[in-house]
Amino acid sequence: MPERRPFDVLNSSLNNTVIIGMKGGAEFRGVMVAYDVHMNIVLEKAEQLVNGEVKRGVGTVLLRGDSVTFISPA
Amino acid sequence: MPERRPFDVLNSSLNNTVIIGMKGGAEFRGVMVAYDVHMNIVLEKAEQLVNGEVKRGVGTVLLRGDSVTFISPA
Amino acid sequence: MPERRPFDVLNSSLNNTVIIGMKGGAEFRGVMVAYDVHMNIVLEKAEQLVNGEVKRGVGTVLLRGDSVTFISPA
Amino acid sequence: MPERRPFDVLNSSLNNTVIIGMKGGAEFRGVMVAYDVHMNIVLEKAEQLVNGEVKRGVGTVLLRGDSVTFISPA
Amino acid sequence: MPERRPFDVLNSSLNNTVIIGMKGGAEFRGVMVAYDVHMNIVLEKAEQLVNGEVKRGVGTVLLRGDSVTFISPA
Amino acid sequence: MPERRPFDVLNSSLNNTVIIGMKGGAEFRGVMVAYDVHMNIVLEKAEQLVNGEVKRGVGTVLLRGDSVTFISPA
Amino acid sequence: MPERRPFDVLNSSLNNTVIIGMKGGAEFRGVMVAYDVHMNIVLEKAEQLVNGEVKRGVGTVLLRGDSVTFISPA
Repeated sequence: MPERRPFDVLNSSLNNTVIIGMKGGAEFRGVMVAYDVHMNIVLEKAEQLVNGEVKRGVGTVLLRGDSVTFISPA
Repeated sequence: MPERRPFDVLNSSLNNTVIIGMKGGAEFRGVMVAYDVHMNIVLEKAEQLVNGEVKRGVGTVLLRGDSVTFISPA
Repeated sequence: MPERRPFDVLNSSLNNTVIIGMKGGAEFRGVMVAYDVHMNIVLEKAEQLVNGEVKRGVGTVLLRGDSVTFISPA
Repeated sequence: MPERRPFDVLNSSLNNTVIIGMKGGAEFRGVMVAYDVHMNIVLEKAEQLVNGEVKRGVGTVLLRGDSVTFISPA
Repeated sequence: MPERRPFDVLNSSLNNTVIIGMKGGAEFRGVMVAYDVHMNIVLEKAEQLVNGEVKRGVGTVLLRGDSVTFISPA
Repeated sequence: MPERRPFDVLNSSLNNTVIIGMKGGAEFRGVMVAYDVHMNIVLEKAEQLVNGEVKRGVGTVLLRGDSVTFISPA
Repeated sequence: MPERRPFDVLNSSLNNTVIIGMKGGAEFRGVMVAYDVHMNIVLEKAEQLVNGEVKRGVGTVLLRGDSVTFISPA
């Protein structure tokens, strides 16, 4: 196992803007304020994106880890 | 792990209006009156939305956590 | 955790008419006479609905919890 | 929990004709001669249905519980 | 529980020709020479079928139980 | 349980060319040099196939067992 | 079990460029800097590919193992 672990990305992204990919292709962009071991994630000031375009603002949103495909610091 | 946890969003949303995203793309909007660790959720005064439009009122509805993708305070 | 629990909806709906949403979009409407912790559900006098229209009567039907997405008292 | 349990439907349907719904929409109709706790089911004199029409006879068939969505006495 | 069990079909089909349905709709036909509790199955002299037509011969093939939907003696 | 076991196919295919079917329909062909109990598989000199046509060479590839549907010695 | 194990590919690819296939067909290419037993993977200098074409640069990205289908050293 490598010394760096995947969850380090989550920890270092706390309070920063991230893009979250979801199963089915939708994406959310917002400030990550909480996560847990299941990759359940809370974003604030969040927007839902479809094909890279902002579809709507959603404010605070809890994303269920089971539906998350990727997490990328913006 | 951060001090704020994803389930805090659920707890703080009790008795408030939320929007729930479901696998397949449907959404429900209503007052969240119950949830559990599986993210099974009960809404009252709920409406089912398709493409952001109200499809129908459903009154009380129990959403199975396995099908939930996101939860957002309205 | 809130005092009201999601399964309360199931218990209070026993012997009443409910609408059950299934993965893939089909729905069943009938009198709920049994359920278990997996959300396996038995309806009697049941009808299968497609796009809100009655497709056919199915009498008694056991719905596998894994395929259930929502349960709503009718 | 209610006194009647979902698996009662399976037990009372033994040696009777049932219709089984499968993920993806296919259905099988036949005489149920065996089942287990995973809802693996064996039908005899079975037919595969597509859109309610008989597609072909399949004789004996073991249906994997993971793919079963509903079971209804015919 | 009934006296006959679903896995009896597997055992009695050993060294006989079976048709296996897979998630997504493909099918394989061949002589079943091995299986396990996960319904992983090995066929010999196997053919892959699409819409009931032979698509190609595949000789020996190990089918992963997770993708199997039904098993029927041919 | 039969004396022959599904994993025998994996073991006897080590260092031989196999075709691997993946969920969604893609296939890989290459020399199998490693596998584990989850059916995670490593191919070398591998090619990705779409509709039976070589789409591209991929050299070494680790296939995640969860996405594997079948394994066939070429 | 063979002496070579699938995770050897991950370990030997650390700090090298890899292509990751995802459920649904998207791919990511980048330098793998971390992974864990769930095949959660972190890429740096990553690009998202669609049909083999670079769709966009994503910098650092954490890919959830559950959505990974294959990993190939580039």
